[in-house]
Amino acid sequence: MVHPLVLTLSCTDRPGITARVTSFLFERGGNILEAQQFNDRAADAFFMRVEFDPGGASADSLREDFAAIAGAFGMDWKLVSRDRPRRVLIMVSKFDHCLADLLYRWRIGELAMEPVAIVSNHPREAIGHTHLGDIPFHYLPISRDGKAEQEAQVRKIAERTGAELVVLARYMQILSDEQASHFAGRCINIHHSFLPGFKGAKPYHQAYERGVKMIGASAHYVTSDLDEGPIIHQAAEPISHADTPEELVRKGREIENRVLAEAVRLHLEERVLLNGRRTVVFRS
Amino acid sequence: MVHPLVLTLSCTDRPGITARVTSFLFERGGNILEAQQFNDRAADAFFMRVEFDPGGASADSLREDFAAIAGAFGMDWKLVSRDRPRRVLIMVSKFDHCLADLLYRWRIGELAMEPVAIVSNHPREAIGHTHLGDIPFHYLPISRDGKAEQEAQVRKIAERTGAELVVLARYMQILSDEQASHFAGRCINIHHSFLPGFKGAKPYHQAYERGVKMIGASAHYVTSDLDEGPIIHQAAEPISHADTPEELVRKGREIENRVLAEAVRLHLEERVLLNGRRTVVFRS
Amino acid sequence: MVHPLVLTLSCTDRPGITARVTSFLFERGGNILEAQQFNDRAADAFFMRVEFDPGGASADSLREDFAAIAGAFGMDWKLVSRDRPRRVLIMVSKFDHCLADLLYRWRIGELAMEPVAIVSNHPREAIGHTHLGDIPFHYLPISRDGKAEQEAQVRKIAERTGAELVVLARYMQILSDEQASHFAGRCINIHHSFLPGFKGAKPYHQAYERGVKMIGASAHYVTSDLDEGPIIHQAAEPISHADTPEELVRKGREIENRVLAEAVRLHLEERVLLNGRRTVVFRS
Amino acid sequence: MVHPLVLTLSCTDRPGITARVTSFLFERGGNILEAQQFNDRAADAFFMRVEFDPGGASADSLREDFAAIAGAFGMDWKLVSRDRPRRVLIMVSKFDHCLADLLYRWRIGELAMEPVAIVSNHPREAIGHTHLGDIPFHYLPISRDGKAEQEAQVRKIAERTGAELVVLARYMQILSDEQASHFAGRCINIHHSFLPGFKGAKPYHQAYERGVKMIGASAHYVTSDLDEGPIIHQAAEPISHADTPEELVRKGREIENRVLAEAVRLHLEERVLLNGRRTVVFRS
Repeated sequence: MVHPLVLTLSCTDRPGITARVTSFLFERGGNILEAQQFNDRAADAFFMRVEFDPGGASADSLREDFAAIAGAFGMDWKLVSRDRPRRVLIMVSKFDHCLADLLYRWRIGELAMEPVAIVSNHPREAIGHTHLGDIPFHYLPISRDGKAEQEAQVRKIAERTGAELVVLARYMQILSDEQASHFAGRCINIHHSFLPGFKGAKPYHQAYERGVKMIGASAHYVTSDLDEGPIIHQAAEPISHADTPEELVRKGREIENRVLAEAVRLHLEERVLLNGRRTVVFRS
Repeated sequence: MVHPLVLTLSCTDRPGITARVTSFLFERGGNILEAQQFNDRAADAFFMRVEFDPGGASADSLREDFAAIAGAFGMDWKLVSRDRPRRVLIMVSKFDHCLADLLYRWRIGELAMEPVAIVSNHPREAIGHTHLGDIPFHYLPISRDGKAEQEAQVRKIAERTGAELVVLARYMQILSDEQASHFAGRCINIHHSFLPGFKGAKPYHQAYERGVKMIGASAHYVTSDLDEGPIIHQAAEPISHADTPEELVRKGREIENRVLAEAVRLHLEERVLLNGRRTVVFRS
Repeated sequence: MVHPLVLTLSCTDRPGITARVTSFLFERGGNILEAQQFNDRAADAFFMRVEFDPGGASADSLREDFAAIAGAFGMDWKLVSRDRPRRVLIMVSKFDHCLADLLYRWRIGELAMEPVAIVSNHPREAIGHTHLGDIPFHYLPISRDGKAEQEAQVRKIAERTGAELVVLARYMQILSDEQASHFAGRCINIHHSFLPGFKGAKPYHQAYERGVKMIGASAHYVTSDLDEGPIIHQAAEPISHADTPEELVRKGREIENRVLAEAVRLHLEERVLLNGRRTVVFRS
Repeated sequence: MVHPLVLTLSCTDRPGITARVTSFLFERGGNILEAQQFNDRAADAFFMRVEFDPGGASADSLREDFAAIAGAFGMDWKLVSRDRPRRVLIMVSKFDHCLADLLYRWRIGELAMEPVAIVSNHPREAIGHTHLGDIPFHYLPISRDGKAEQEAQVRKIAERTGAELVVLARYMQILSDEQASHFAGRCINIHHSFLPGFKGAKPYHQAYERGVKMIGASAHYVTSDLDEGPIIHQAAEPISHADTPEELVRKGREIENRVLAEAVRLHLEERVLLNGRRTVVFRS
């Protein structure tokens, strides 16, 4: 049975990287299943993702041997199992459509993840519709002056459960700079507007007031700069003058669901690489 | 042969408006071909558009008779020929894709307009690809300190030609407040971003820098508040990390073309009503 | 508290219908909240939907009084409560994404329905992920030669529960002509292709074989003519050469969910009128 | 100044192809600008496209040297200049929107082509709106029994002008099997429906009759099997019950324009590889 690996890397662009990397894999008996590269000529940077069947080679030995190449090219890199479910911590407030959607996709095997914890600043009853099954639920309210402490608890849960990814599935709290830094590159938020339009609170009401003719949603990595993190995925849909803010909220839920689920899928499959404040997204 | 009329109106909402208006048309021998209404409950406002075959009644007599109803309800209203081509003045700078597109649509009868003048701040050669035919071309450069004068010339041409609509088809100059006021409600601009994101100059470069995953275009009425006028139509398309600013410019042209053409069509067919800083758009 | 009513009607087009209908409502003290009409000039047919606050008038008295007008114009018509949840019977086989999606939307109040029964040709365990709550589940397998009997049981359940709408939420069985006739105009199916392309079985595999560059889904009323019933809603999304049939199935689920949910919403809100083998859909 | 080359290839998949190809380019002093590959696991086939700066190497010497590798792997391959404009013959009947659109894109440098001839079965006056400039126009009507002869004339013009691509830009004639074979893989047609729906004549009228809720267009390589050739690109847009066939024709023009232009661009940039009756499309 095949246990594919994924190699992702980025470095300064120069001739011969692809040849070196793919020759390495070939010499070790690897067989490429899918490969993409991006030569960012403006930034003189190179990005690559290779999915391969390692044949007889172990991930550990490949990692060990690849380190020399990576060193020579000054690469940021990662060589991991493609199919191992990543441990995911999901945070939510009162609107649980994204949570319900993610859990459904997980249950039918669409998302290769293992939900290790659900954290909310509201009690379990707030999301009573959603079937959590055995996933531990943590009610961590934020008292006045208690944000730092609550965030410490979240970090503790993340650490204890080995969470590799934190998903803010309509978690209506702003993370502190400290928390954003702690989860840098492994915390995805869904913002319910087509960024950079309508940052901050109540974007659908902002959209209604402005009279735009489309609404959207944006999934991005969380940074200390609110709604300014690297965007992974966005989508938008037409609306009309007859759409009240309530209608926009309804229409928006659907867009939020699919934008967040797609971003999470892309991240879980190691398809998203950071390129400064932007992302490189290698779709198949 | 039928010469349909279009009645558009807006007023404070109250019971009986539709009944009163449609009964009036019926009593005068009119036959409705298409009708839409919008009850804006938040603003307590009513909007209506009726396309009808007036039968034997003349537009003048209908207008005269309708005035009493309009007065009773405090309506803003208009009763005009549906098919008479509106006189349009088009302004352009160096990028003429929107101009070429509008003229093609006009030539094959898609847009019921009569282009009465093309005004540019660049000489005719700048848009040498585009077949202007007999449409008068006016080269009105803007010298330092000469903006007020140039704008006066534009107003003069508009007046002399009876221009009913001014289309800024990638006219890369900001209108003065005076000019924007002068053409209020009859000047449409295409902005090459998905407003309210990336207002101002070089929106595709802004989009590239921010790393968004979709780009768009917005057609709006010009007001003195830059890129803040009532939006008529918007569209957006996906992009990827591999799109350079130049690629965005190329992809954007197509979106700009169709968004502007659609907005112009809607305006020409009297399908756009102002509702504060927003628009009501009655598509068929 | 307001209990809005919805009047829907269709008849041969002729002058004065709108005036007559809206004058009637006005005279009875009604206040229009939303109204649409469609004059089908090719078919010489008229369609209308009016949402109104009846003021003091009862639905029964309005119906009684309106009957005379309806008779004079030869109308097909209906005057019903806008907000009363419609009783819905949902049928499903082994793929329950549409079912899960519909139930979630119902639970958060997005769909004004009351699920009265879930019927499957597979046992409850087949859709074990989905939280059915108190909704009765009926396992009605289809044995060889037992289809007529199974369908009779479905009709019985529909009758007993007063089901007003039957939703085939990826129910992978073809209804007999008799069954299709029985539920004519009140049975919605989701077909997982962009009809009329790829009718019949395994549309995603057909799409893959043909090498199309977009896939879609279609929600339609069921008729005895397979996949040929009046279409209510459709959507499509781009795919690429790299998408295997399995990827198409995954991408398709999302399209199926939103197309079916939108069609069900439109039907529940009395926004879909039949026009021969086509539909008139009055969006707000 | 850089003169990039493009290498495209396909062969049976096996380990080491990418390594071999990219090592070859590196050893010859090439620098990859953009590269994509596709491992079709179902067909056990491999596809690749590499854009590279050849450094000092000439295209001829690279071709000579690469032949050995290509032979060893049994490749179908091509190594050509990336930027040399391809010679294109465009065929049109009475609707010239696609022609006008292609020529505009060519004139502003968006399409790297050189239009060598325009052929029509209607006289020049039929497309009087469109500015052909110096491009030779050939009026080749098809008389009863004269199709074979007319097609021979087209082939002659193609040969004489060295046309590398034939674009059927709403050319409303069916090519004979012989003609389709002659131009196999280098003749692109735009069909004004979302294939495989509505093949054959008058697809917008078919769409209206069927009552679909979206219309589309498909660009494909021409084969002897009508409207069944490998699809390069498709797009679709929503329509409503109120759209007459004439409205569909209007809305469709825009979709046809962009679908055909995109397919032509992809072909000109050597981004389309044939994979049986399907295509592999390497977007950047």
